[in-house]
Amino acid sequence: MAEDQNPSPNTGGTVQDTLARVTELLRRHRLVEGLVQRQDMPRHDLVETLVHKQNLAELQQILDHLHPADVAYILESLPRDERLLVWDLVKAERDGEILIEVSDAVRETLIASMDSDELLAAAENLDADEIADLAPDLPGDVVSELLRSMEADERSRLQSALSYEEGTVGALMDFEMVAIRNDVSLEVVLRYLRRRDDLPDQTDTLFVVDRDDILRGTLSLRRLLVKDPERIVGEVMREVGVVFRPDDPAREAASAFERYELVSAPVVDADGRLIGRLTVNDVVDFIRAESEAERLGQAGLREDEDLFAPVWNSARNRWPWLAVNLLTALFASRVIGAFEGSIEKLAALAALMPIVAGIGGNTGNQTSALIIRALALGQINEANRSRLWRKEAWFALLNGVVWGVALGLIAFALYQNLPLALVMTAAMMLNFLLAAAVGIGIPLTMHRLGRDPALGTSVLLTATTDSGGFFIFLGLATLILL
Amino acid sequence: MAEDQNPSPNTGGTVQDTLARVTELLRRHRLVEGLVQRQDMPRHDLVETLVHKQNLAELQQILDHLHPADVAYILESLPRDERLLVWDLVKAERDGEILIEVSDAVRETLIASMDSDELLAAAENLDADEIADLAPDLPGDVVSELLRSMEADERSRLQSALSYEEGTVGALMDFEMVAIRNDVSLEVVLRYLRRRDDLPDQTDTLFVVDRDDILRGTLSLRRLLVKDPERIVGEVMREVGVVFRPDDPAREAASAFERYELVSAPVVDADGRLIGRLTVNDVVDFIRAESEAERLGQAGLREDEDLFAPVWNSARNRWPWLAVNLLTALFASRVIGAFEGSIEKLAALAALMPIVAGIGGNTGNQTSALIIRALALGQINEANRSRLWRKEAWFALLNGVVWGVALGLIAFALYQNLPLALVMTAAMMLNFLLAAAVGIGIPLTMHRLGRDPALGTSVLLTATTDSGGFFIFLGLATLILL
Repeated sequence: MAEDQNPSPNTGGTVQDTLARVTELLRRHRLVEGLVQRQDMPRHDLVETLVHKQNLAELQQILDHLHPADVAYILESLPRDERLLVWDLVKAERDGEILIEVSDAVRETLIASMDSDELLAAAENLDADEIADLAPDLPGDVVSELLRSMEADERSRLQSALSYEEGTVGALMDFEMVAIRNDVSLEVVLRYLRRRDDLPDQTDTLFVVDRDDILRGTLSLRRLLVKDPERIVGEVMREVGVVFRPDDPAREAASAFERYELVSAPVVDADGRLIGRLTVNDVVDFIRAESEAERLGQAGLREDEDLFAPVWNSARNRWPWLAVNLLTALFASRVIGAFEGSIEKLAALAALMPIVAGIGGNTGNQTSALIIRALALGQINEANRSRLWRKEAWFALLNGVVWGVALGLIAFALYQNLPLALVMTAAMMLNFLLAAAVGIGIPLTMHRLGRDPALGTSVLLTATTDSGGFFIFLGLATLILL
Repeated sequence: MAEDQNPSPNTGGTVQDTLARVTELLRRHRLVEGLVQRQDMPRHDLVETLVHKQNLAELQQILDHLHPADVAYILESLPRDERLLVWDLVKAERDGEILIEVSDAVRETLIASMDSDELLAAAENLDADEIADLAPDLPGDVVSELLRSMEADERSRLQSALSYEEGTVGALMDFEMVAIRNDVSLEVVLRYLRRRDDLPDQTDTLFVVDRDDILRGTLSLRRLLVKDPERIVGEVMREVGVVFRPDDPAREAASAFERYELVSAPVVDADGRLIGRLTVNDVVDFIRAESEAERLGQAGLREDEDLFAPVWNSARNRWPWLAVNLLTALFASRVIGAFEGSIEKLAALAALMPIVAGIGGNTGNQTSALIIRALALGQINEANRSRLWRKEAWFALLNGVVWGVALGLIAFALYQNLPLALVMTAAMMLNFLLAAAVGIGIPLTMHRLGRDPALGTSVLLTATTDSGGFFIFLGLATLILL
């Protein structure tokens, strides 16, 4: 997208203010509709109502002056019926760029409301990499029609963009790079740029290629501006620093952008030929999407949920996790069931056992949160792994002594039963050790198996510390007390 | 930092490979030291050992060729003693920029190993905004000495940078903006730039000011390069779009950068005077730090932990949360204690009660994760709040029917006790409703009180669904079964 194509970002007030205004206009619109329905006026007369038209006209005007990202935000914040009403008011030529901006869940509802011609028209204003982002949500016939109608160049870009797996550099990159030759003078480059009307967004660097399109270096606009125009590109360019391949993991690219404070970087194929670029904005979107997926994933949500989605969609999203948790809870329940005889004799056991299990879960989750973070940063290796185990083992022992004794005292204060208090202390100590072991072991194992330890560690860990905590406490109690 | 000051980012292999090489050299170094110690050789002779010198020389060479961010990464990945050995090998003039890059916990250990003169020397190579980032970790006398030795201009920048609260734009901004006047031609601007040796990193845009330093617009380098040099800045510049004040929340600035795909943006004071700039790299660091603080905060960790910190540091970081959880667990335990009579008569209650409590906690956390996300995006307002409550209430009822009946059947299969199975179903239904209510209510309330709902919601919620679940289940059982 070129610099001037879109209305400026909102400056008077925040987008939240705009949302409030839009909501108010929609409310008034509903009032009028309600009035009309109660008077049994036919629906097409409604369109003639003056007030009604005024509201929609004002709404339309607001939308026309909003940045596509702001329109997307408003669409996401509205319940379905009002969302589709607003969507109808958006000018058709802006549909494409707004579809790019909305969340997956909302995009589905918008696309479902459009026919093939509208979708084709929307996609026409987009670049190949943007169409590739939309493609999974588009009907198959629309995608093949799009491919048919494209020029060969653009079609091959779209096809390659579609071929990269999610989570790779290829899936994030775009094709709007500006390439220059290494054997010309800066003056020539300056003249070449001046002949263009504008440069692509986020162009901070020109990519220098030789006659075979092999990437030879980069020339930042900053350098181009301060160096003597008589000099040759090859002399003033930087040798290539950070370069990506399309199948590099996006996560590693994001670290490189953060670490080296990049704005854009070239992407090359196996032969070193320049094929695209990655920009910091793609990276920011990726980082945000990743941390969001992780946050939702920790609560066992498979995907972002449209806040106003029908109850059945929520069930599809949330139930698999509930089912898993139900199974682990049933297992823990059976562990307790095995000791029902002991509990009948000493009901205090039932009251104390959730403390042992719960605190174990908490401390295990603390350990695993630190391990997951260190794994994400690549800070754990063969050399320091054993130190890590040792440190956490010592810490678990310290925890066991301090908190185990504290809980033993509390148990004694409550039940005046010394053996019970000692069982409590011993069980806490053992469950702290178990929690440390699974808090390190589970994320390390998942990492070794190539799975993301941020997802699923918590449920496995809590299942272990719960069932383990019940077993340790009730088992010790049965051995010692009864 | 200027473009050429630092060695290029690592190109041959990843920084993980470098870490492996460093670790290997350190291991060999330790072997030599161990050998020397066993032979009772005096320590200063050791320095003369040839092998030993070779290892350290190779290590030094590797470090000299690393980007400061990569050195920081290696320091973070090493245990304390080896970390300090490597830190001693880093060239003194690079100390400052590396201190900026390391995590807070590791920075503390490095600063503790340096004396005042070393710290002063390290800070000398930094900009005011970077010194402001370091200042909280520096000894007071070093900071005042630094202020004394600075030029008036730089000192007032540092003082203002120090005055902004964490989490504001002021705390993130830097002062390396390039400002131009609106009444000169592009040709003059081009000549002005060429007289400079280089432009600051992340300069994609020049800020246009009038003679009173009031910000009038922005001129991107891209535009400067493509427009006719005869034209006047005021004609080709863009009217100011996104502008920040130093006391704007950093979180809002980050959203604006994401939404409008910015690379840099001006910061102005109350009179509209240009005082600094915000870059996308500051924003990326902020986003990453925020999501990390949230991830750690969810596990009740107050701060990032140095993986190899002494056990006592870990205790300081982790125990406050354990103490809170202990209190909520004790409360839940007392709820159970109140029903010990019932449990003595029917021990099956003790085995079934954790299922009711646990599933309630899971479903409540799912709801709150979605609400927290929607709050962070600003998508919840007066108008849609009641819809949200209604939707979640319906979903809780659906959950209650489906999962409540399923668990009732399981309970019946296990204990062949129909009233017990009915109590199970009813308790699940009620706890699902409770979970939905607190899953929405807690984050909304925290948000209204101006607190971050991502932190603390989980512990409050689980405390409620645990104690509530036990109370509902055991209470119903006592009323109906006994």
